[in-house]
Amino acid sequence: MTTIVVDAMGGDFAPREIVKGAVSAVKDFGIRVILTGQKQTIESELKRYSFGSGKITIVEASEIVAMDEPAATSVRKKKDSSISVGINLLKENKAQAFFSAGNTGAVVCAATLKLGLLEGIERPGISVLTPTLKDFSLVIDVGANIDPKPVHILQYAVMANSYLEYVFNKKSPTIGILNIGTESSKGTDFIKESFLLLEKSGLNFIGNVEGKDIFSGNTDIIVCDGFVGNVALKVSESLAEMLFVFLKRELMSNWFNKLAVLMLKSSLKRFKRNVDYSEYGGAPLLGVNGAVIIGHGRSSAKAVKNGIRVAKEEVERSVNEHIVESIRKIK
Amino acid sequence: MTTIVVDAMGGDFAPREIVKGAVSAVKDFGIRVILTGQKQTIESELKRYSFGSGKITIVEASEIVAMDEPAATSVRKKKDSSISVGINLLKENKAQAFFSAGNTGAVVCAATLKLGLLEGIERPGISVLTPTLKDFSLVIDVGANIDPKPVHILQYAVMANSYLEYVFNKKSPTIGILNIGTESSKGTDFIKESFLLLEKSGLNFIGNVEGKDIFSGNTDIIVCDGFVGNVALKVSESLAEMLFVFLKRELMSNWFNKLAVLMLKSSLKRFKRNVDYSEYGGAPLLGVNGAVIIGHGRSSAKAVKNGIRVAKEEVERSVNEHIVESIRKIK
Repeated sequence: MTTIVVDAMGGDFAPREIVKGAVSAVKDFGIRVILTGQKQTIESELKRYSFGSGKITIVEASEIVAMDEPAATSVRKKKDSSISVGINLLKENKAQAFFSAGNTGAVVCAATLKLGLLEGIERPGISVLTPTLKDFSLVIDVGANIDPKPVHILQYAVMANSYLEYVFNKKSPTIGILNIGTESSKGTDFIKESFLLLEKSGLNFIGNVEGKDIFSGNTDIIVCDGFVGNVALKVSESLAEMLFVFLKRELMSNWFNKLAVLMLKSSLKRFKRNVDYSEYGGAPLLGVNGAVIIGHGRSSAKAVKNGIRVAKEEVERSVNEHIVESIRKIK
Repeated sequence: MTTIVVDAMGGDFAPREIVKGAVSAVKDFGIRVILTGQKQTIESELKRYSFGSGKITIVEASEIVAMDEPAATSVRKKKDSSISVGINLLKENKAQAFFSAGNTGAVVCAATLKLGLLEGIERPGISVLTPTLKDFSLVIDVGANIDPKPVHILQYAVMANSYLEYVFNKKSPTIGILNIGTESSKGTDFIKESFLLLEKSGLNFIGNVEGKDIFSGNTDIIVCDGFVGNVALKVSESLAEMLFVFLKRELMSNWFNKLAVLMLKSSLKRFKRNVDYSEYGGAPLLGVNGAVIIGHGRSSAKAVKNGIRVAKEEVERSVNEHIVESIRKIK
């Protein structure tokens, strides 16, 4: 049975939503969960639920990494944080995957330092699934590495390719590099060098794609440096939020409208769910020697549950083994 | 009377929507317009409208720069394009501003080469107003210069500052630099150096802002390199489009819903208008020695009209003179 470590203290709604999501996951996914964090706090949360005995255990971690704490120092100074303790459990083979909705930088740093990287991989990348008009697309990297070299972009492409092939059964997914135009003459030297590496990689590389292609659904995988990817992700989230606020403001402006909105309630709910990040679960940190999934800071119980599902799939489909195999072929 | 040159051949809906927007602008704004492009085509469009005699004239330009044509070669090879001819009119002082919804790269290139840059400015930047939850924010640069130096970022800040002060009467607008976190330790070396320059600029610099701040309305001016800015802009456009498609799909799924939507029609229209780029008009290309406004490729007549309004304001508020003054003070 797959065992997944969950950082009970990470995220804006920790530990309540994290524990709730973990309970829901053990019930539905046939897995075991180890919660890391302050034992007493977690225990009092767990008391609210019933679940199979032995399915959830707690491993004490006395410290908490704050959401805005500098990543590197948090790992060095807080050796007993719920993140560090959780990653250690992976290293000691007491579990197969780790999920945290806590400080992203701290998770990337702890995972890279403690687990090391997969053979042939020089930098990890955070991959995120985004909804599109057709299906979804995967964007990598959204912030693990803000100053990558072209060879890292190639490695992101290889990792994402294995991920989609083995978790989503997508054979030869299309891969594009995020640029400011589609002509091959466009972009910085960094982009042009990455383009050349991707072109001769043997992957299904379709060339440059633009910011608008992230949501058009024309490309399965979009590779980019972590700076641009992070900005794109955060811009998208805040735009979607703003549009919902505007829509709500307009629609609720008088009683006649309110009546109409009531009629549309279930449709509007479905609409919101379609574009809700939490439905897609966590973001796999690909490249580290272990399955590590990063949840959104504002993860609800549902998002946590979906993040745990993502972790389970990554383990059970042996994504990391496939990545190592693919990267060997390219070298 | 301010005279504005309008590229009649640039944009997906040229010349029809361009000419329509120009006619509407001369009627409402008390300006004169010179249309550049193929005379016969423009004349047959103009015949559809009535407007004050002498208010609109045509200057023949036999060539058209395609939307996806490489910028530099288009300027070199098509000396008689509607863009080049239009910019030349500015240079010869036959008009005070130029508007084009055509090939952005070609406009940037032609304007920079022919008009030159303002004293103290080393690179032009395209600035765009985006709607936010509170008001609007200005993002610069969204694609004129994809590989800027820190000093260019400082110059963008100075230019945007003058623009908001004199066109929108915003005294000491807040300025943030787009980064992947708010702590000053975050970001690439390029960002950190730009940060230091902005800090000692005397401008109202508030530090790092994130992708989510573009739509939150917490910052008046957001400076970034043209690569990141371009991606952010295009991601936003395509996400907004995707959300509208999703919303429409859900809302029109049955007759009961359709009835409710009918009740909400005016509110939904208002909502769409709130977030419609064309309401905000064109994007000023700041830094060149002249008022040059770039319209969206898909500009409708309304967008063209608003773009012409933006051009008129930039001229009448002497934005360029104020930029030169401000940049002198900083040096």
